[in-house]
Amino acid sequence: MLSILAAKRDGRALSERAIRWLIDAYVAELVPDYQMAAFAMAVLLQGMDAHETAALTLAMRDSGKRAALRKNALRPKLDKHSTGGVGDKVSICLAPLLAACGARVPMISGRSLGHTGGTLDKLEAIPGFNVSLPLRAFERVVEREGLALIGQTADLAPADRKLYALRDVTATVESIPLITASILSKKLCEDLDVLVMDIKVGGGAFMKDVAQARALAQSIIRVGKLAGLKVRALLTRMDAPLGRAVGNALETREAFELLRGGGPDDLRECTFALGATMLREGGLARTDREARGQLEGAIADGSALEKMRRVIKAQGGDARVVDDPELLPQAPVRLPLYGKRSGYVHALDALKVGQLSQRLGAGRTIAGEPVDLAVGVWLEKKPGQRVREGERLAVLHARTRTSARRELEALSDAYVIRAARPRARKLVIEAM
Amino acid sequence: MLSILAAKRDGRALSERAIRWLIDAYVAELVPDYQMAAFAMAVLLQGMDAHETAALTLAMRDSGKRAALRKNALRPKLDKHSTGGVGDKVSICLAPLLAACGARVPMISGRSLGHTGGTLDKLEAIPGFNVSLPLRAFERVVEREGLALIGQTADLAPADRKLYALRDVTATVESIPLITASILSKKLCEDLDVLVMDIKVGGGAFMKDVAQARALAQSIIRVGKLAGLKVRALLTRMDAPLGRAVGNALETREAFELLRGGGPDDLRECTFALGATMLREGGLARTDREARGQLEGAIADGSALEKMRRVIKAQGGDARVVDDPELLPQAPVRLPLYGKRSGYVHALDALKVGQLSQRLGAGRTIAGEPVDLAVGVWLEKKPGQRVREGERLAVLHARTRTSARRELEALSDAYVIRAARPRARKLVIEAM
Repeated sequence: MLSILAAKRDGRALSERAIRWLIDAYVAELVPDYQMAAFAMAVLLQGMDAHETAALTLAMRDSGKRAALRKNALRPKLDKHSTGGVGDKVSICLAPLLAACGARVPMISGRSLGHTGGTLDKLEAIPGFNVSLPLRAFERVVEREGLALIGQTADLAPADRKLYALRDVTATVESIPLITASILSKKLCEDLDVLVMDIKVGGGAFMKDVAQARALAQSIIRVGKLAGLKVRALLTRMDAPLGRAVGNALETREAFELLRGGGPDDLRECTFALGATMLREGGLARTDREARGQLEGAIADGSALEKMRRVIKAQGGDARVVDDPELLPQAPVRLPLYGKRSGYVHALDALKVGQLSQRLGAGRTIAGEPVDLAVGVWLEKKPGQRVREGERLAVLHARTRTSARRELEALSDAYVIRAARPRARKLVIEAM
Repeated sequence: MLSILAAKRDGRALSERAIRWLIDAYVAELVPDYQMAAFAMAVLLQGMDAHETAALTLAMRDSGKRAALRKNALRPKLDKHSTGGVGDKVSICLAPLLAACGARVPMISGRSLGHTGGTLDKLEAIPGFNVSLPLRAFERVVEREGLALIGQTADLAPADRKLYALRDVTATVESIPLITASILSKKLCEDLDVLVMDIKVGGGAFMKDVAQARALAQSIIRVGKLAGLKVRALLTRMDAPLGRAVGNALETREAFELLRGGGPDDLRECTFALGATMLREGGLARTDREARGQLEGAIADGSALEKMRRVIKAQGGDARVVDDPELLPQAPVRLPLYGKRSGYVHALDALKVGQLSQRLGAGRTIAGEPVDLAVGVWLEKKPGQRVREGERLAVLHARTRTSARRELEALSDAYVIRAARPRARKLVIEAM
């Protein structure tokens, strides 16, 4: 262990064998947390090349079990992963859409942490929905329904779970090789053909600028290739929340709206851009236009919505919520925010909205904390929209009047209203 | 803790308050080892400026108790610290010499580790000698006899002991700020007026080149000044072992020889160069010449040897060993090495000699292991000396014939014999 630590400390590349030994020994508790913490800090500061990162990824993948799906080129296995944002319910929209287009979507998602949301919490807003299927049941649901939506089980990449928890308390999260290995080790357990990364960029995202985001995308694409997985990446803007809903049940509701043909433009664009990439890379469509046509068709003919109902039923949930969103958890208090001046919504700070939603109870500060599924914000006005003084901008959904009143000011601060119409900015910054 | 970790990771300087909080929390076990390990790695790779290092030093000093000696400018409190070498018994020579010259020497030393020796183990070769005096007894012996020689007690800089043990298993030993703080935090507990550092440079030392050694010296001098301690440093050569004896009892015996007026030239030069610096900086001599005269006088009139007898007695040891070194532990097996060719000893590899002595049992691989006090090597021929084929070069002192035979080849490999007389090199490379 000391020679591995000294090598990485001195900026030397580690062999695949050394990395595999390290991960196996860490999971077996032969390497203690303090040595792994020093290692993580050395990696953060000295880096790892793509070959080392691939070795780390595969060693972490192999630390537990993996899904095994049937070989069937006509039904490609697709998934997308987002680096996390505010109001990002795209996974819940995408999975049934892709399944309706003929793909299989074996989706293993995470929970919300800090100001960013997580798909699992949103799914748990659906009464009865079980995100903890055993691996075999997960495989069966994917084969039968075309999609299944679960969380990381205890036997899936345990090395990643252990290392992630350690990085979280040692300021070693922000390392591109470690982020790459963490994401890919889990995704490789899904037995995928294609992974599309949604790399969020901006004030509400983990990556604050395009250069960082591009570096992460390049790392994941390159390491994915070395590890045998085709990866594509879109860099998408996360300065304002995505869509109108922020908060678990509210976001699930908005995802259903999109599947029914509604939903806001930005959410639809993000979903379609990612979905079209996935259909093309999976061989289900030749062009972007054709792929988008398929996605639109799956909405228009109700097949995506039907996939949603079926997966909810298959995972023990009450599928009626799809058609009757009033069955989702409801917050007892609703407090509207009114505009103080007329003009255009120039900006809507995703970080501020994410943080206030977290404080309302929709998010967690520490992994493992419970969340309030009902609370959040419904943003009626989004950037680019015209507003009049006294018009309703948004509605806080809260557990108590006190908590709602406490966050009204923060919500107001998140809105920047100016006289001039803002320049429209494309949601997708770059496709890689 | 996370903000401290993130700041150091990102190369920012930490406030004195943050550093003090960190050390206090670490000793109180509020900060776990894994966070401290990540911190140590971040410091190793991102560095610490002199002000941060001074804050760390003082926080570590204040984590336990400190000696308190009387104020008396006529009897300055002096100590030296060596970064460790092979055959380095200078402390055992210097302490009684300086005491005989009127100084007080409150010396807290360490144990051998790896191929380098430690003063405590050498002192324990003296039957009955107690290196574990409580702090109050240590102070009394210093005031009365002018010197006391002990090890780091449990209540002395506990933060340093804890952090050092962690650095040892996380490949974070080689950090100049951390080495500086570790050395100075302990030395500041001695209530010193002057510290002289013997920074060993070369194959047998921790610092392999002069640039590294100079950087460490500068750091210790600068941080010492900020922490209120006058520090001087000599860079001395450690390519060959110092003196003829390597191994605990053998080295103690050689130290007594020096105090009696004998001993090899290099050991005498190292002792006098350091001792003269200390006497000058302590105000007991104005010039190097005057200081060396005092040291020579303390040998010639037997007062240094008498100081040695008195401190041994005061610390429970059998003072007769000073005059009858046969009372020191004796190795049962002695195996001579004979020269295979005639010429000059061109080089004598300190690292190889240190390592074989360690393997014979004189040193330890892991802190806390017992050592064999009797074993080691007596080097009859040193670099620069003429040797004839078949002449005795050295004698191995071993526990068993097997272990002696096993190391004979290694000892032979350590000797480089060439026809030409080697260029004489100065022992003291630089004074700072």
